[in-house]
Amino acid sequence: MYKKRNNIKEIEEGKYLEPKFDKNGLIPVITVDFKTGDILMHAYMNDEALKKTIESKEAHYWSRSRSKIWHKGQISGFVQKIKEIRIDDDQDSIWLSVDIGNGASCHVGYRSCFYRSIPLGKIKNTEKIELNFKEKKKMFDPKKIYKDEDNPTKI
Amino acid sequence: MYKKRNNIKEIEEGKYLEPKFDKNGLIPVITVDFKTGDILMHAYMNDEALKKTIESKEAHYWSRSRSKIWHKGQISGFVQKIKEIRIDDDQDSIWLSVDIGNGASCHVGYRSCFYRSIPLGKIKNTEKIELNFKEKKKMFDPKKIYKDEDNPTKI
Repeated sequence: MYKKRNNIKEIEEGKYLEPKFDKNGLIPVITVDFKTGDILMHAYMNDEALKKTIESKEAHYWSRSRSKIWHKGQISGFVQKIKEIRIDDDQDSIWLSVDIGNGASCHVGYRSCFYRSIPLGKIKNTEKIELNFKEKKKMFDPKKIYKDEDNPTKI
Repeated sequence: MYKKRNNIKEIEEGKYLEPKFDKNGLIPVITVDFKTGDILMHAYMNDEALKKTIESKEAHYWSRSRSKIWHKGQISGFVQKIKEIRIDDDQDSIWLSVDIGNGASCHVGYRSCFYRSIPLGKIKNTEKIELNFKEKKKMFDPKKIYKDEDNPTKI
């Protein structure tokens, strides 16, 4: 769909969008709250989701658990309005800067999916590394919002 | 190496690190400048790179182009000192907050790999979407720094 990649100099320093989708047809996406700079989530797009995002100015992803285009906020109401889209040097990952107002982006109920930190330093036992919760309070109750929807988290 | 994943509730809301590596043994990593909040790069770790990062407090990745552990900054000198590591709800992606001083993180020479933005709105021709350069000036000359190293960008 997009311009064909055939020259590394053009990919890195050229002016045209030449995104690289992996063998599953996906490109990773980092989504950031434009107000705070906090990372809200890490997800994937296929070529169509990228086109829909650029044109509608609302984030669309490819849901790997549901195998379909996922217009973020369709169920929860927490639509992500695009402030800016960037692409990286080799054009194989996307950065979305979005406005979610006072909403949330994590299906568990937190504002950001990255609500836990990993302690630094010497590891004694890799099976017992204890995380620290950086968000203390959920923004919504996922049971009320998602009802019978499948949980996208898989073992 | 890490705690085994066997319960979704524990993965999402538990206190233990139970990272999910994909079928290639990798987990995606988003690296952010702790001072500005700007995304510097998107890369991958294997289990060993994650352990080395936690213990050494310097970012280690898995280089997919070179198929080896990559201690960022070994060649360029631009080491990424870890300020914080976070993991997301389903523990399948990592957020690194790093200090790179006045250095750079992009092999093309820019401070961030995400130096170009994609314009929003109706697309007329997907083969001619023109990017905007958001960083105007390189921080270093990659030819001087990397000399004969292979370019990690692949078509």
